Amino acid sequence: MDSSRRPNSLPAFPERLRQFQLRVERALEVRLPPVSEPPRILHESMRYATLGGGKRVRASLVYAAGQAVNAPDEALDVPACAVEMIHAYSLVHDDLPCMDDDGLRRGKPTCHKAYDEATALLAGDALQSLAFEILAIDPALALSTAQRLRMTTLLAQAAGSHGMAGGQAIDLASGGKTLTLAQLEDMHLRKTGALIRASVLLGAHAHVEPDSGVLDALERYSHAIGLAFQITDDILDVEGKAETLGKNPGMDYARGKFTYPQLLGLPEAKARARNLHAQALESLAPLGDNGKLLAELAGFVIERHQ
Amino acid sequence: MDSSRRPNSLPAFPERLRQFQLRVERALEVRLPPVSEPPRILHESMRYATLGGGKRVRASLVYAAGQAVNAPDEALDVPACAVEMIHAYSLVHDDLPCMDDDGLRRGKPTCHKAYDEATALLAGDALQSLAFEILAIDPALALSTAQRLRMTTLLAQAAGSHGMAGGQAIDLASGGKTLTLAQLEDMHLRKTGALIRASVLLGAHAHVEPDSGVLDALERYSHAIGLAFQITDDILDVEGKAETLGKNPGMDYARGKFTYPQLLGLPEAKARARNLHAQALESLAPLGDNGKLLAELAGFVIERHQ
Repeated sequence: MDSSRRPNSLPAFPERLRQFQLRVERALEVRLPPVSEPPRILHESMRYATLGGGKRVRASLVYAAGQAVNAPDEALDVPACAVEMIHAYSLVHDDLPCMDDDGLRRGKPTCHKAYDEATALLAGDALQSLAFEILAIDPALALSTAQRLRMTTLLAQAAGSHGMAGGQAIDLASGGKTLTLAQLEDMHLRKTGALIRASVLLGAHAHVEPDSGVLDALERYSHAIGLAFQITDDILDVEGKAETLGKNPGMDYARGKFTYPQLLGLPEAKARARNLHAQALESLAPLGDNGKLLAELAGFVIERHQ
Repeated sequence: MDSSRRPNSLPAFPERLRQFQLRVERALEVRLPPVSEPPRILHESMRYATLGGGKRVRASLVYAAGQAVNAPDEALDVPACAVEMIHAYSLVHDDLPCMDDDGLRRGKPTCHKAYDEATALLAGDALQSLAFEILAIDPALALSTAQRLRMTTLLAQAAGSHGMAGGQAIDLASGGKTLTLAQLEDMHLRKTGALIRASVLLGAHAHVEPDSGVLDALERYSHAIGLAFQITDDILDVEGKAETLGKNPGMDYARGKFTYPQLLGLPEAKARARNLHAQALESLAPLGDNGKLLAELAGFVIERHQ
């Protein structure tokens, strides 16, 4: 990711992805409370958990979906930060000993290892509050109150008991059990898919009046990449290495978590990811050229996403 | 709290308080996801943590402040539920082993005892999301999008790192240390005071255009009762019994938490609570008769609040 060493013949997509990553990093930097403000340790841990790492898939989806509907980038920084804050909070809580008990995340010690469990718990809690606070009040979001509220609703529903938190609860309850494909997909559509969908729709709602045909297309696109994202995660857990993953591979298996490769076998899991990739691309047809960046992002999410 | 055994000569205030308690209980009942919807255990634990107990001080402050500015009760159910959801989530997370490690709350086993730690963590997380979701979209809240956003902002700021979560972080960091009165009050203004302030202001903002003189008065009122609330809590921790507290007394002391009675001695702590009570009543003067219910609530919060 060191752009100074990239050749000039760089293809357009990786550079745009890198621009999104840099852009959301800067936007997060100024929106997270400074360490100079008390409570310092809490603010430091919130920044530790959110800044300086991650693929920023969700923020990139906000920017790409926003650009697809011709929303200005200035209207996208705040929702991009909000989805990354929710994502960061979920990782911090997920890594706690009572959940996945993970020690490595984005190549660094997890938040509760770098600080302590209580601080990590509060950092996650405060990141969730901050995500909603910036959607409600951040002056950089030059949108109507109705649009802000629509974004707040989408994000709250994606994060809550019918979305991400619900998916995690189902994941917990299904530990050690064999699931059907439908059950596995239902879990992942909540656990990972809900926030991916919200990221795409938040981008789309940064335009004054998103076209309903475009919204339908984006719904289908999010559904496909939301599922594919998790399949790729499961495949990487089997095939990946810690240095590229930024976390320890083989942990799902070690924890008795039920994965796509277990259910379908590795070749079939890969085939399913390819199939979902094709569905994602197909769903973008109504967007014409405006969907190109989202198409490239689908490839990034599905083919490697490290 | 068994009204069937109350005499007919019941004074007005306890009955109105009981009405608020019943009203918010019913409003929460329909807004919390039903157990019949998956994920069932998560929804059950969210309901367990929120329903059927508690003094509902925060909801009562929403109703009383709303009535003080002539807002209709129908505009108050949603903010009343939202503050109680945030409060319930904070109790669930506070009681976790990595925080206060409490086993008894509102006379029942704490959420992580009744379920498990991971479920309690997710229940708290999902309750926070739900609080923002209902402020953003619940159709019973017949207010403008601008008013909804104002409420969302107030609640997010009260819950976040400069409010409740921040106060808890300061509390953690100050364990076993001696604080000055200013430090102790700063901690409690965040930890308890912020959500109390938000409750009062959410009620006031349910009126179309709250008068700035009234808002100032309510700010001063919230400041006084926010501090007094915690002093009373500390006094009850010394003097109270488990059956009236609904939690184990003496725990602050056992945990080495720094309290008002430790800093000031018990008589001086009680005098300070009385002084804050007087300040709260005085601050309500601009409201005239409209402030009567808030005045009674101040007495309830400060004199006994069990």
